[in-house]
Amino acid sequence: MSGEQERLARVTLSHATEPGDDKVCDSVTTVGAARTVEEVLADDARPELAARVKAVDVDRVLSIADRQGVRFVTPEDGEWPSQLDDLAHGARVQGLGGVPVGLWVKGPMRLTELRDSVAIVGSRSATSYGFDIATDVAAAVARSGAAVVSGAAYGIDQAGHRGALAAGGATVAVLACGADRVYPAAHRELIDHIARHFALVSEAPIGSAPTKVRFLSRNRLIAALSRGTVLVEAALRSGALNTANWADQLSRVLMGVPGPVTSVTSQGVHERIRSGAATLVTGGLDVLELVGASGEQLTIVPRGPERAHDDFSLREVRVLDAVPVARGASTESISSIAGVGVQEADRVLVALGEAGLVHLGVDGWRLVARAGRR
Amino acid sequence: MSGEQERLARVTLSHATEPGDDKVCDSVTTVGAARTVEEVLADDARPELAARVKAVDVDRVLSIADRQGVRFVTPEDGEWPSQLDDLAHGARVQGLGGVPVGLWVKGPMRLTELRDSVAIVGSRSATSYGFDIATDVAAAVARSGAAVVSGAAYGIDQAGHRGALAAGGATVAVLACGADRVYPAAHRELIDHIARHFALVSEAPIGSAPTKVRFLSRNRLIAALSRGTVLVEAALRSGALNTANWADQLSRVLMGVPGPVTSVTSQGVHERIRSGAATLVTGGLDVLELVGASGEQLTIVPRGPERAHDDFSLREVRVLDAVPVARGASTESISSIAGVGVQEADRVLVALGEAGLVHLGVDGWRLVARAGRR
Repeated sequence: MSGEQERLARVTLSHATEPGDDKVCDSVTTVGAARTVEEVLADDARPELAARVKAVDVDRVLSIADRQGVRFVTPEDGEWPSQLDDLAHGARVQGLGGVPVGLWVKGPMRLTELRDSVAIVGSRSATSYGFDIATDVAAAVARSGAAVVSGAAYGIDQAGHRGALAAGGATVAVLACGADRVYPAAHRELIDHIARHFALVSEAPIGSAPTKVRFLSRNRLIAALSRGTVLVEAALRSGALNTANWADQLSRVLMGVPGPVTSVTSQGVHERIRSGAATLVTGGLDVLELVGASGEQLTIVPRGPERAHDDFSLREVRVLDAVPVARGASTESISSIAGVGVQEADRVLVALGEAGLVHLGVDGWRLVARAGRR
Repeated sequence: MSGEQERLARVTLSHATEPGDDKVCDSVTTVGAARTVEEVLADDARPELAARVKAVDVDRVLSIADRQGVRFVTPEDGEWPSQLDDLAHGARVQGLGGVPVGLWVKGPMRLTELRDSVAIVGSRSATSYGFDIATDVAAAVARSGAAVVSGAAYGIDQAGHRGALAAGGATVAVLACGADRVYPAAHRELIDHIARHFALVSEAPIGSAPTKVRFLSRNRLIAALSRGTVLVEAALRSGALNTANWADQLSRVLMGVPGPVTSVTSQGVHERIRSGAATLVTGGLDVLELVGASGEQLTIVPRGPERAHDDFSLREVRVLDAVPVARGASTESISSIAGVGVQEADRVLVALGEAGLVHLGVDGWRLVARAGRR
């Protein structure tokens, strides 16, 4: 079996079957595409599929794709994003799953550049909060040099792409329709821009309309292509949760951005964090730490402003608490209130004085007034 | 050693030492209060402590407390909340820890009623979002029959108490000052109400002012008294995180309510959820499930509105997707678009028709218009 024969058989199967059909994908992975085509043609139980396979005019299909600037990328190509091979061992959900037969790609970016990519997905009806956060996270990912993967939909998807572009970074849209088509139509400018400078990717052949099945198949590719998926706003039945499930199931890093518990569009995210499927992230730094190779990216654990009390011993805190603000107090009085010995109180008071926290005046020790002290 | 002698020694130590002093608490737990007093009096290295112990006039102290309606509760009393005994094996933090020498209690509620209680703590400078959520969670806890424990502070504490009261439930305030004092002064009405109908609890004796050390000691009691602690808004250095640490360390259930990642007052909560110390909760039901005895409370996993697609096989979804809206289509046409056999398509279409999703008219099958369908 020549490589070219295999390739043409993959084109045939891509056209004759639905994206992500697990039986087809698994057969191609196991016995190869040409052998799969042979078996389909010999299977009397599926005459319609055999008819569709026979009807594919591979030369014409490839020539049309070529004219549209769309190339067909298979696991045999150097450009193949090998992380998709994880799908061979991933779940089969409602008849969907497995390694794609091939990808239809439009745009100059090579898919191997998606190795460190991060997917940003979420509600189509995002709030301005979600939109802003998705934009910020995408920008942080892009600035780190990684590409942002999403699905070009309204809401969070759009914010993900735009955030990456605004930061001067790379972004790839994985579509449920053919790579030659624009869906949703309102995103023509965005989708055209991605096609011109980066890449549109689809498992569905040229001319395919987006259907529910194709959206579901597409979601597994978004999850599988990227190191991690960030879920930014998703209602309880959001399609983005399907992508999240794929990410979780494929042992990708699944991350969720929380929001107000009163927001319907955060309910799905909260559910995933609560169940432990997703890790809570609050921004780009968290995301980069979680998807980064160990030690490559380190989130600085956020700390509030340093407060003078923090490094003190209990004894010192007691003494400090016993020093009045309004008028001075004697060392003896302070030692009694603080419950420490006079000598100890004296030693601590001198140290606190050196730290600028207390002052010894004519009427005794008093606190030094400081902005922001309790 | 009589029980009465032990009791009076505990009163003495409560007055002569700071709340939560780990050496004192541990000594009392190990050798008893009377023996601890003896050892203190014999210890030449701590003359100030010995002097303070000698200076306590136990009869007078108890008589003043009695006049204020404040009782002293020790581990030997039937009213003792035995969950506090977990502190014997809990952490020692900056010299604080251990089982309290005793509790000063004001109010008619018996502390044994706190067995199933839930603590609600958080930022003093809560947002209206946090205040509302804390109120709602407290009301849900109260309606379940459990008491709400908090610290009577501004913000989330106050919302916790008020939410429980508004729901007709019980609430207890654990104070850093003496149970006879009101802190903060602006909460006099609330604190008086709790004292009249429920209970104020303090490890610090009558007349004690609230100090930093006493707040820290108090926090461990809030955590130890309750089955779980709900953190509702806490900035990165919020004192509520100290309570959260105690809850976590004592193997109580630690829960956090998320908020917008842009909100400073949610940062501390998000950090605890992200680190895995706290479990994300979105409301009272989540809280009751997590603190409830297994099987007693069950959260209904939230689901979006049922959609007709959900129970369908892939094949059925494909057929449904292939049925046009605008005009009718033949079974053959639909089978071809859906990629299933004609007989199979016919079988599925009939079933979809019975489900009211498609309709067979004179021009063929078409989708039945439904509000909210994609």
